[in-house]
Amino acid sequence: MKTAKIGLLGFGNVGGGTYKILTDNADLIESRVGVRPEVVRILQRNRNKKRLVEASPALLTEDPDDILLNPDIDIVVEMLGGIEPATSFMLQAMKNGKHVVSANKAAIAANYKLLTETAAANNVEFLFEASVAGGIPVLAAIEGSLQANDFVEIMGILNGTTNYILTKMTDEGLSYDEVLKDAQEKGFAEADPTADVEGLDAANKLSILIALAFGRYVAPSDIPTTGISKITPADIDAARSRGKKIKLIGQASLEDGKLNYSVKPVELEASHPLAGVNNEFNAVYITGDMVGELMFYGKGAGPLPTGSAVCGDILQIMRDMCK
Amino acid sequence: MKTAKIGLLGFGNVGGGTYKILTDNADLIESRVGVRPEVVRILQRNRNKKRLVEASPALLTEDPDDILLNPDIDIVVEMLGGIEPATSFMLQAMKNGKHVVSANKAAIAANYKLLTETAAANNVEFLFEASVAGGIPVLAAIEGSLQANDFVEIMGILNGTTNYILTKMTDEGLSYDEVLKDAQEKGFAEADPTADVEGLDAANKLSILIALAFGRYVAPSDIPTTGISKITPADIDAARSRGKKIKLIGQASLEDGKLNYSVKPVELEASHPLAGVNNEFNAVYITGDMVGELMFYGKGAGPLPTGSAVCGDILQIMRDMCK
Repeated sequence: MKTAKIGLLGFGNVGGGTYKILTDNADLIESRVGVRPEVVRILQRNRNKKRLVEASPALLTEDPDDILLNPDIDIVVEMLGGIEPATSFMLQAMKNGKHVVSANKAAIAANYKLLTETAAANNVEFLFEASVAGGIPVLAAIEGSLQANDFVEIMGILNGTTNYILTKMTDEGLSYDEVLKDAQEKGFAEADPTADVEGLDAANKLSILIALAFGRYVAPSDIPTTGISKITPADIDAARSRGKKIKLIGQASLEDGKLNYSVKPVELEASHPLAGVNNEFNAVYITGDMVGELMFYGKGAGPLPTGSAVCGDILQIMRDMCK
Repeated sequence: MKTAKIGLLGFGNVGGGTYKILTDNADLIESRVGVRPEVVRILQRNRNKKRLVEASPALLTEDPDDILLNPDIDIVVEMLGGIEPATSFMLQAMKNGKHVVSANKAAIAANYKLLTETAAANNVEFLFEASVAGGIPVLAAIEGSLQANDFVEIMGILNGTTNYILTKMTDEGLSYDEVLKDAQEKGFAEADPTADVEGLDAANKLSILIALAFGRYVAPSDIPTTGISKITPADIDAARSRGKKIKLIGQASLEDGKLNYSVKPVELEASHPLAGVNNEFNAVYITGDMVGELMFYGKGAGPLPTGSAVCGDILQIMRDMCK
């Protein structure tokens, strides 16, 4: 094999970042992997939206079947967001013998078993590093280097918008509403911020982390979830007076065989490594029975950080295709 | 394949930790990988030394050929430390068709090309996650999830002894000599601490990081290296007055195609993620052209953290043997 043929579902932020990396760093990738990545088709549903990067019009299509049914395509990369039609598209790609990479936490958390079982039944790879904590390679570590550990606890700052808001509230003494408005104006928060600020996005990511680290599926809707919209400057000051900082933490731990999990604002000791994770950065803090405590820190969102994780998965599949 | 036969070269701290993980977590490993790890022979050179764990006397040998020439053994794990005879043993194992895992930064940094080329020529795997930053899975990330990035800079706190000494000097206002003596009494520093405090250990690890991230071999002896033995409480106070903290940093960066590298004490802004890495913890801070800044934090030494990394490599080979 000299090239791997890739179809992209979605050409928004993550799709654009992924396309940019695969084209800008194509020589580097080929020199490292021995195979050249070639994007052969891109599903672009809204052709009027402003694009991060430009692609040849010949690559663009509005018909998903041009990718899902295309016999030339080896790897389908799903970056549409939302549960449907993303899940159906991924299942169809797998059934057509295509490896699937996804950045879509909502679809994966909602349909984890169906997607992983369908991939296994069709003997294709299904990788989704970008779905949790953007560019931070934490899923690969859990499934790779740390596999000799029994996992004890996972704690994460899994949502950049809420971490940005809490950081500004803490550092500048502003109210939740003031910071949210500022974040929306700067594009760091959505016009409808519910999924972020109420912890739903973090719960999707925690569901995926639980599945990989503890081998159990917990639906996001079954994770007790509290967001940050009720946090006041007085709460933050009170925490500070106790030497603590408030962070929105997705947490799961095993105690006496019982798995506990939640997403909620937590007062961390100011010396805790997660307490120093500020602004839009994410981090995952993992305790293994053998390795002890580890932390993985980096950018949890953005076209290029998230695209880096998507491309890491694509390259893994390219390597495996050569074996 | 139902079991993978493993020979351990060395039964000190890392060898003992590795043996403990492979035995205590054997069921977990088998359930995850589908293969059971079986330690069939252990080279123990000093039978009078106090052991971390006990192994059946039938497993122990003083003759390396019982492992290197043993046709039953699939994977040889080198945890002897020092450049020789470790390098010769690894080469011999590779030439006999055995996969090799090593935790030995001195041997790998000294003989990087010879070892990697011999592994490739003999079509065996050679993995060494534990050689850099102990339990932190940073080499796998560089060679895996981050492979679509052109690396821009790597900075690391790569030696726990010196980070412990600098932390105590910073937090308690003690002199270098006072803290070193205390660390030696507690077993955190060697009787002869030269390799740690003069930065030589960090230079070995930086050499390995440079090879993987930048694809170039720089001998440890060619890395400009300054240790911490000349750091005074006055230096630390002066840094503090500028809002900075002194850390021993191994650093490599590409600027206009030129690779710069050093190991030396650096004044970091107190808000830099590496400035919050204290005591015996290690961390590696990586900048990629696409992913931006990442930090990997954890225990850089100790039988179980280092053993966790060794076992991660063993499990990777076990998976690949099944393909």
